[in-house]
Amino acid sequence: MATVFILNGPNLNLLGVRDPAVYGRDTLGDIEERCLRRAAALKLEIDFRQTNHEGQLVDWIQEARESADAIILNAGAFTHTSLAVLDALSAADLPVIEVHLSNIFRRERFRHHSYVSLAAAGVICGLGAQGYELALEAVARLLAGRTGETSQ
Amino acid sequence: MATVFILNGPNLNLLGVRDPAVYGRDTLGDIEERCLRRAAALKLEIDFRQTNHEGQLVDWIQEARESADAIILNAGAFTHTSLAVLDALSAADLPVIEVHLSNIFRRERFRHHSYVSLAAAGVICGLGAQGYELALEAVARLLAGRTGETSQ
Amino acid sequence: MATVFILNGPNLNLLGVRDPAVYGRDTLGDIEERCLRRAAALKLEIDFRQTNHEGQLVDWIQEARESADAIILNAGAFTHTSLAVLDALSAADLPVIEVHLSNIFRRERFRHHSYVSLAAAGVICGLGAQGYELALEAVARLLAGRTGETSQ
Amino acid sequence: MATVFILNGPNLNLLGVRDPAVYGRDTLGDIEERCLRRAAALKLEIDFRQTNHEGQLVDWIQEARESADAIILNAGAFTHTSLAVLDALSAADLPVIEVHLSNIFRRERFRHHSYVSLAAAGVICGLGAQGYELALEAVARLLAGRTGETSQ
Amino acid sequence: MATVFILNGPNLNLLGVRDPAVYGRDTLGDIEERCLRRAAALKLEIDFRQTNHEGQLVDWIQEARESADAIILNAGAFTHTSLAVLDALSAADLPVIEVHLSNIFRRERFRHHSYVSLAAAGVICGLGAQGYELALEAVARLLAGRTGETSQ
Amino acid sequence: MATVFILNGPNLNLLGVRDPAVYGRDTLGDIEERCLRRAAALKLEIDFRQTNHEGQLVDWIQEARESADAIILNAGAFTHTSLAVLDALSAADLPVIEVHLSNIFRRERFRHHSYVSLAAAGVICGLGAQGYELALEAVARLLAGRTGETSQ
Amino acid sequence: MATVFILNGPNLNLLGVRDPAVYGRDTLGDIEERCLRRAAALKLEIDFRQTNHEGQLVDWIQEARESADAIILNAGAFTHTSLAVLDALSAADLPVIEVHLSNIFRRERFRHHSYVSLAAAGVICGLGAQGYELALEAVARLLAGRTGETSQ
Amino acid sequence: MATVFILNGPNLNLLGVRDPAVYGRDTLGDIEERCLRRAAALKLEIDFRQTNHEGQLVDWIQEARESADAIILNAGAFTHTSLAVLDALSAADLPVIEVHLSNIFRRERFRHHSYVSLAAAGVICGLGAQGYELALEAVARLLAGRTGETSQ
Amino acid sequence: MATVFILNGPNLNLLGVRDPAVYGRDTLGDIEERCLRRAAALKLEIDFRQTNHEGQLVDWIQEARESADAIILNAGAFTHTSLAVLDALSAADLPVIEVHLSNIFRRERFRHHSYVSLAAAGVICGLGAQGYELALEAVARLLAGRTGETSQ
Amino acid sequence: MATVFILNGPNLNLLGVRDPAVYGRDTLGDIEERCLRRAAALKLEIDFRQTNHEGQLVDWIQEARESADAIILNAGAFTHTSLAVLDALSAADLPVIEVHLSNIFRRERFRHHSYVSLAAAGVICGLGAQGYELALEAVARLLAGRTGETSQ
Amino acid sequence: MATVFILNGPNLNLLGVRDPAVYGRDTLGDIEERCLRRAAALKLEIDFRQTNHEGQLVDWIQEARESADAIILNAGAFTHTSLAVLDALSAADLPVIEVHLSNIFRRERFRHHSYVSLAAAGVICGLGAQGYELALEAVARLLAGRTGETSQ
Amino acid sequence: MATVFILNGPNLNLLGVRDPAVYGRDTLGDIEERCLRRAAALKLEIDFRQTNHEGQLVDWIQEARESADAIILNAGAFTHTSLAVLDALSAADLPVIEVHLSNIFRRERFRHHSYVSLAAAGVICGLGAQGYELALEAVARLLAGRTGETSQ
Repeated sequence: MATVFILNGPNLNLLGVRDPAVYGRDTLGDIEERCLRRAAALKLEIDFRQTNHEGQLVDWIQEARESADAIILNAGAFTHTSLAVLDALSAADLPVIEVHLSNIFRRERFRHHSYVSLAAAGVICGLGAQGYELALEAVARLLAGRTGETSQ
Repeated sequence: MATVFILNGPNLNLLGVRDPAVYGRDTLGDIEERCLRRAAALKLEIDFRQTNHEGQLVDWIQEARESADAIILNAGAFTHTSLAVLDALSAADLPVIEVHLSNIFRRERFRHHSYVSLAAAGVICGLGAQGYELALEAVARLLAGRTGETSQ
Repeated sequence: MATVFILNGPNLNLLGVRDPAVYGRDTLGDIEERCLRRAAALKLEIDFRQTNHEGQLVDWIQEARESADAIILNAGAFTHTSLAVLDALSAADLPVIEVHLSNIFRRERFRHHSYVSLAAAGVICGLGAQGYELALEAVARLLAGRTGETSQ
Repeated sequence: MATVFILNGPNLNLLGVRDPAVYGRDTLGDIEERCLRRAAALKLEIDFRQTNHEGQLVDWIQEARESADAIILNAGAFTHTSLAVLDALSAADLPVIEVHLSNIFRRERFRHHSYVSLAAAGVICGLGAQGYELALEAVARLLAGRTGETSQ
Repeated sequence: MATVFILNGPNLNLLGVRDPAVYGRDTLGDIEERCLRRAAALKLEIDFRQTNHEGQLVDWIQEARESADAIILNAGAFTHTSLAVLDALSAADLPVIEVHLSNIFRRERFRHHSYVSLAAAGVICGLGAQGYELALEAVARLLAGRTGETSQ
Repeated sequence: MATVFILNGPNLNLLGVRDPAVYGRDTLGDIEERCLRRAAALKLEIDFRQTNHEGQLVDWIQEARESADAIILNAGAFTHTSLAVLDALSAADLPVIEVHLSNIFRRERFRHHSYVSLAAAGVICGLGAQGYELALEAVARLLAGRTGETSQ
Repeated sequence: MATVFILNGPNLNLLGVRDPAVYGRDTLGDIEERCLRRAAALKLEIDFRQTNHEGQLVDWIQEARESADAIILNAGAFTHTSLAVLDALSAADLPVIEVHLSNIFRRERFRHHSYVSLAAAGVICGLGAQGYELALEAVARLLAGRTGETSQ
Repeated sequence: MATVFILNGPNLNLLGVRDPAVYGRDTLGDIEERCLRRAAALKLEIDFRQTNHEGQLVDWIQEARESADAIILNAGAFTHTSLAVLDALSAADLPVIEVHLSNIFRRERFRHHSYVSLAAAGVICGLGAQGYELALEAVARLLAGRTGETSQ
Repeated sequence: MATVFILNGPNLNLLGVRDPAVYGRDTLGDIEERCLRRAAALKLEIDFRQTNHEGQLVDWIQEARESADAIILNAGAFTHTSLAVLDALSAADLPVIEVHLSNIFRRERFRHHSYVSLAAAGVICGLGAQGYELALEAVARLLAGRTGETSQ
Repeated sequence: MATVFILNGPNLNLLGVRDPAVYGRDTLGDIEERCLRRAAALKLEIDFRQTNHEGQLVDWIQEARESADAIILNAGAFTHTSLAVLDALSAADLPVIEVHLSNIFRRERFRHHSYVSLAAAGVICGLGAQGYELALEAVARLLAGRTGETSQ
Repeated sequence: MATVFILNGPNLNLLGVRDPAVYGRDTLGDIEERCLRRAAALKLEIDFRQTNHEGQLVDWIQEARESADAIILNAGAFTHTSLAVLDALSAADLPVIEVHLSNIFRRERFRHHSYVSLAAAGVICGLGAQGYELALEAVARLLAGRTGETSQ
Repeated sequence: MATVFILNGPNLNLLGVRDPAVYGRDTLGDIEERCLRRAAALKLEIDFRQTNHEGQLVDWIQEARESADAIILNAGAFTHTSLAVLDALSAADLPVIEVHLSNIFRRERFRHHSYVSLAAAGVICGLGAQGYELALEAVARLLAGRTGETSQ
């Protein structure tokens, strides 16, 4: 059974706690649970983690290189600033799906550029917690080799 | 039963015909079929169209305003150049999911900016034909009011 | 009696229908009527049209070259993106008044530049439907040769 | 009866004196007279002034805050450089119509940006002395509450 | 016998009609005739068209993919704004020669960038109607496989 | 009989020697020969030269001012960096055709701007050695006064 | 006893009058009073002034050169546009503390750059009227030579 | 009694050790002591920390969310590069005062932009160790609700 | 006898007073005297003035339009910021020589652009007080019509 | 007797020959003669040279290091492109006066930046041939140590 | 015997493991060994470390301040993003040699700028593992005071 | 025995002569001698040259193509401006090591970009004369095929 690392960057541990009216009631724990259910249905194992430390995120991506078959990454603020994360992803040589809860392109200008995108197979943003589930579905197909990779 | 307009912009009619080794064997017809199947499962009706004409695309988005409950849009090259499409989407006041077959952020610099994103709830790119299916799943949840809209 | 083409670009057909609290209750039809009344008072004939198609707008401007004495143009989104409209206006060699319902300089940055302005005698923006009427008054004076053209 | 301050910035006192072939024969005095006639017809009182001093212009706009119902402003060169004028206009909280005799968008690049526009309800440019009269008509309607404010 | 599509973009239908002192007396019809004569000498068949509609131009380039051996393209204003035309050319996978009647590099800054150039084998500009004839000669050699393609 | 200077800038003497698979087998000598043949057919005399020295190129352009009727110039790298060459061309007051073997607009960004274009009647690029021959044909027509100069 | 000039630029005379809900109830007079009290406690004499005229501000800074020991400056809009104020400050060769009532870095982009900062020892912004008092405390220490100037 | 976190970023632990002639003799310990004294006078409790690790700083800001009433932050180099710190501050939803020992606007260009400012109520820079004390005074007033928040 | 206005902008009244080691011992009065002597030798009358007020400078340039034959202008900081001064100079339609005591191109970047240069016949900078005398010599020749105006 | 190298860059040898109506009738020879006369009056010896070769200009500036007391330099096009000339001037460690016949700030944008200015004591431009004479006067004073170097 | 810290940033621990055909077979351990041998020959002691954590790198540079005589630094991705590393290096006040295995100037644009360079005595890049050895040789000479520091 | 061309660009002939306190006492001759000694030890032959002429440098690089096995290049100012040198290096198809005596990244902004780097295997800068010796060592290993080319 394939393993997927689902890695979350800085401040994502605060989800659901602050301002539920705005950000939704889902905590990161709730998202993990939804991922577990969807992963089970897709016959995938997941390892779900969060860190506020860039170096930790790099360590985990390097670990994925050895122990995982794919990465789903919501790098939070590091998305826009961390070249080290990009380099780790490039070295990992695994399918990567980039996820953002909000549509980053409707936020401040400095959130429009993503280093992660340069190493990601696909990007899903603006779909909240559901984005993680869709990312799992995408990973499942990529791993099944039934990518039907069309381009435009 | 809710109706979803799935609109495709210029040159997407060429999918699957040219260079299947690079762009995959899926034609736009194949994608339509996969969408039909997934839509049926989700209890959605779809209206799948393609055009090379910006004005036509604007007309259709205005039509969606009257006749559809959501829009899935792969605007092709118009993504990056058409303010008229953006204005039509803003006026439509419907949930919009933006789809791209390839990861536009790994292509030429002039494909990194999207006017469509400014009016879209979510963006899915780089996942080939599957991106349309995931977009349908996202639409289904948005329409069911079970958006669980979390933000980061 | 002189003829004035009053040409409207993409999405202006939606005026008055959506969000009347924000955009006013005037439909494009109402504007046309106010223009007809003012034109009559000024002894001008008008031809009032709208299109979502850039090519159609270029065709009409070329037609104006043969059949009209002046152009009042609200090119909507094409204002900011269409070099083809600019070239058609330059070739038409007629007095052009550019009109915008809103003050485009208080909106998004990408609406601050206008290709139409490069070929227009004058610009009126932010005055809603009344802007069209003032444009007609301006056209009347330009055609009467009583331009009193002062510059600063 | 409502009062409108018509304020003119630097070098506008030279109108009609220099190069009448280029800039027209209208002096600023002539423009004032045309404004008086049009204002009378519209049941408006006007106070028409000119200064080469930015500080003076700021003082007058602050005075308008107390003593006027609207401002028509041709700030000349200060249009493009004076943040102080913008702040005064924002504080005045009155309807402002920005006027330019020439079409500033066909002149040097550094005349394309206007600080005044950021606080103006509407902009009229390129229509010479007539622009002031049309601005009075616009003010009349704004004050009459019959703005019919449509937006695009 | 090989077929060459000679496609002309917006406003080129006005050639020779307006301002002959500036733009020359050649109409687009005259240019077509000169192309016919030169094509005959080169044993080429040509299909000469003009449109003001971007979508039409994209349709024709797609048609060329099926029915032509090469494209000569003067895309007029679309040269500088149409990513859709670029995508169509890339998909057509035919030799493309870009032609401009004037030297676009001596005109306004926004005419210096060409999307068409990114998909063209060669560019000829500033040589008026003759540019089309030279393009035909270039096409003839490209098709004859005697390209002698040297680079610098 | 009219004389045409065909001037070549730095590194063009290496043509055909290095990497013939990529740059073609034509040496600069071969190109000169093809030019001689085409020139004879066109009743033109040519003077074909190459230099790696910017100052030499300026000297030759000044010489052309006295001794030639037109210039065909492939300035190589100086195209993008030499204002001195531009000034010499402007002073020469002769018809200039700019030639590049490759399509410079598909190469590195710093090759997209050309100082030579600012003084050239026409530009031909991407057509290899044939570009020189077409330039000769263009010169012939320019000198014959049968320019049919149309513009777009 | 040391003297501190507290100079205020354009539109600061409107404080407390307009929009007290937003800008607070403090008038510039109230701020002056608070400064007087704090200055007394610190054994400082103050001279508190406001002007809408850039030239006046320059004159006062030059006067400070002769008559004051330090300057506290809220230059309002001139902060961002007046090189003349910067030059006067540089020539004054006195300790300067720059004050802004609001946090200018959270406002429009054109308020992020400050010419005053280039000549100021310190900057205090976003702390409302209290900012002036803290500036006085800073001045007191600077003048007492007990600056304990650490840098990072 | 309210608690204030005083957080210091990378390299601030070197204060007073290196180059005392330039940076002053105050060590970070001395600053902490001055803060303790001032805090006592203001009836505030402080928690004074330093770290070279961005992730640690994010953790502490998150901790402040639970355990503190305000934050005084000298983020050192992270001021200019850390979006993660900005996000943590925004989530903390506490009054934040940004402090810098030196006037960052007189240093290298890349120190002029601050991510911290986007989430700070106020900024104090260039006043050395005293800046921390003034920040405490500002915090005291903000917490006392006697902000007298005026804006300009 | 021809009259030359020698106008000096903000802070030039401080010359010679501050920092004589750096800026020289010449006061503005000394420069005026040197100008008087040189003017006498050249049979020119001069009117030498200084102001810190932009509006005053504009007034004087307008006065020069009536009362002077040429202007020598050291606009100080207004050189770089005042469009109003540029407009006044353009309207004055007199020979203008721009003078700067220092070489502004070796100073901060924001002093490299001059609005005055756009209306000046010539520019002299970096030559200290002597620059004014050379400007007088230049004016003398311009007025004598013996300009020998060569260009490069 | 002090020696001054007067060095002229590319295309200045064409002065007076082409377009005398525009560029004046002075040849470079005439300018040399005027310089000789003025130098004699100032007790200076001059060495007047012109070259189209950047390397030659660098050689001459290095020679000046040994054999001259000052340099007057009109580097023509190299002004804007040659870092090598700047480095040679910096190494020469002599007073340098930069001269341009025309006012380069009223010409194309790419002539507004000068590398020469970075190493020049003073700049004189727009005064035609007279500029050289004034430069000689400036050199004379610099060498006499009576620079009265004031700065603003 | 002098001690040299050789510090390696993020992802350098992956060297030699992934893609040996591209990146070479040298692991970081191999490089350490080569450094040990070269250091021994040069009579230097080395301390060779790697980390993925920016804060760790800052800590080590601060440690070097106490315990080392020089630093050789390959900061990997932090080279381009870490101002904190730059500040630590500046504070360390030791000779720093910057090393990169690849030629960063031939890679993506965002790798062309280095914060490390601003504090480094020298830079060596593109020479693979040998770069470290050459850096050691450079350090040896710098420490021996036989730097023969010439500049160009 | 392999031959290495060591080529030096403009103004490097002045080394050691001017300002020995700043630039060191090494003349270019001294550097040549150190290179000779190191080359002998490495069994390399060298050909050491200097020129102020860009064309000469291009000629020599072309000569190296025939007669040398590697190039060590300190192109001086041409590093930053000469595309012709870049093209010559690309054509030479030899290992190139770029050397600079000073650390160009700590100097003026216009020295931060290098065209030479685009064609160089490695770059060594800031290490004075020793940089040439290290470059020789690098060349020796590259030629020995023992490159151990690792990348990061």
